[in-house]
Amino acid sequence: MEEKKIVIKEVGPRDGLQNEKEILSSKQKIDWINQLSNTGIPYIEITSFVPSSWIPQLADALEVAQGITRLDGVTYAALVPNQKGLETALEANIDEVSLFMSASESHNKKNINKTITETFPIMKAVAKESLQAGKRVRAYVSTAFGCPYEGAVSIDSVLKICDRLLTDGAYEISLGDTIGVANPVQVEVVLTEVLKRFSADEIALHFHNTRGMALANILRGIDMGINTFDSSLGGLGGCPYAPGASGNVATDDLVHMLGQMGYETGINEEKLMDAAVFIQNILRKSLKSHQMSVMNQVK
Amino acid sequence: MEEKKIVIKEVGPRDGLQNEKEILSSKQKIDWINQLSNTGIPYIEITSFVPSSWIPQLADALEVAQGITRLDGVTYAALVPNQKGLETALEANIDEVSLFMSASESHNKKNINKTITETFPIMKAVAKESLQAGKRVRAYVSTAFGCPYEGAVSIDSVLKICDRLLTDGAYEISLGDTIGVANPVQVEVVLTEVLKRFSADEIALHFHNTRGMALANILRGIDMGINTFDSSLGGLGGCPYAPGASGNVATDDLVHMLGQMGYETGINEEKLMDAAVFIQNILRKSLKSHQMSVMNQVK
Repeated sequence: MEEKKIVIKEVGPRDGLQNEKEILSSKQKIDWINQLSNTGIPYIEITSFVPSSWIPQLADALEVAQGITRLDGVTYAALVPNQKGLETALEANIDEVSLFMSASESHNKKNINKTITETFPIMKAVAKESLQAGKRVRAYVSTAFGCPYEGAVSIDSVLKICDRLLTDGAYEISLGDTIGVANPVQVEVVLTEVLKRFSADEIALHFHNTRGMALANILRGIDMGINTFDSSLGGLGGCPYAPGASGNVATDDLVHMLGQMGYETGINEEKLMDAAVFIQNILRKSLKSHQMSVMNQVK
Repeated sequence: MEEKKIVIKEVGPRDGLQNEKEILSSKQKIDWINQLSNTGIPYIEITSFVPSSWIPQLADALEVAQGITRLDGVTYAALVPNQKGLETALEANIDEVSLFMSASESHNKKNINKTITETFPIMKAVAKESLQAGKRVRAYVSTAFGCPYEGAVSIDSVLKICDRLLTDGAYEISLGDTIGVANPVQVEVVLTEVLKRFSADEIALHFHNTRGMALANILRGIDMGINTFDSSLGGLGGCPYAPGASGNVATDDLVHMLGQMGYETGINEEKLMDAAVFIQNILRKSLKSHQMSVMNQVK
């Protein structure tokens, strides 16, 4: 088999920590992000510049972004909801801006208190300013595979939002399975439509592992030509709509599978596990990934 | 998509319980198997007729086999290591006999204290007697994707053993990933060779979820035309070679994924979860499957 590269984008410091009850100190976050930087992972979403009342876990976004040691070859990104958030993100000199909105009206409304139509001009303005400031723009389309309020989400809605965000200047859309309901057949169906309109290089996949299907979904994503996936070390985080559920697909489980399959991620598995043990010790609870389950028992 | 059927063979009462520390009473096992029978699952491996010194957890094989209520449409199978075991299995009037041996010498030697060559005549004799007694014969090839002692296992060894066991009269070979190391690329590579020689209907797959890859492996197995998979409710059991690891792929996670993908298994998910809660209460520990993790939190 010819060697193929897969890009893994670590979202643990943002999507993981925002779903943990415990609030870490800025120093703990900075130390962990610095450790992640040393694993060879090419991309870390380090925080979110949303109002601190939205997500208290990430209220220290500016301090964290300014406190970390940035390594060449690693992109440090952060979530930005609006122009106010962008101001702070630019003050922090973040490498890349992550926009986000939902493919379903109800989730978009609950999450950012606007309709989808009302959200478009904000995305456009933030994208424009980001690009003017020399920052690349990535965009999440949440609930792309299902909505906690509406259930099924139309592929047309996903396509329409992708189109708008790419037109506004995003270089990549991350299709989010926000509540972990996607299955491999659905991944194939959605991607078949998406890839009629957009290039595989413009699409990333972001799975939560609520029902255990995330690695199977990623396998199907790879089959369809996608080569960028978001994940969270140790399966950190959870799901606000399914208490007790796993969080994002675990970076360590994903890296292990891809390595076994002969794919190159650039990530050192041993250093990755060290970074997982580090955050586990801070959170004082066992991380749920398979690699960590084995490691915790062996120790 | 045209509806496709997948056959799930429940091995929890054997492969699951033999890897649990707690030894259940015969009545507890019987009650659980009776509950499993009512879920619509077509096949249950209920116990193992190995000497009780080998697996104390299953020492009451005869009582369990004689105590359960057998439903039409459900096959009740048991593991049989040799002619002595077969005598008891026939006394119990088991529906179907499961032979087992390993594709690697070291595991075969550790597991049944014989070389592979020494094992063949025993398998042949047990198969012959089983068929004469009107019992169908299934056979496991363990360590087909990797051995805890030898590492990589040659596909030639797997093919040779499959050939012998099918020639001896087995209707199906279950290729066992005994230690949970298989990955989807390997599944494709192994099956490509296996299916050059044997029909997809003669092959089942038996994955452990040690590293979290089991559902992805099953997806690839389905892609390759396999339609029979072994699993254990709740992910019961574990791995003697990786303490703390998950056991077999969880029946509930598998049934959920297949259902979402539009496959028909004949299994009622609600009744299946009731049977999982039942055995969890007996074992007094949280089962590790994703469906149970969500259920345990919601309760």
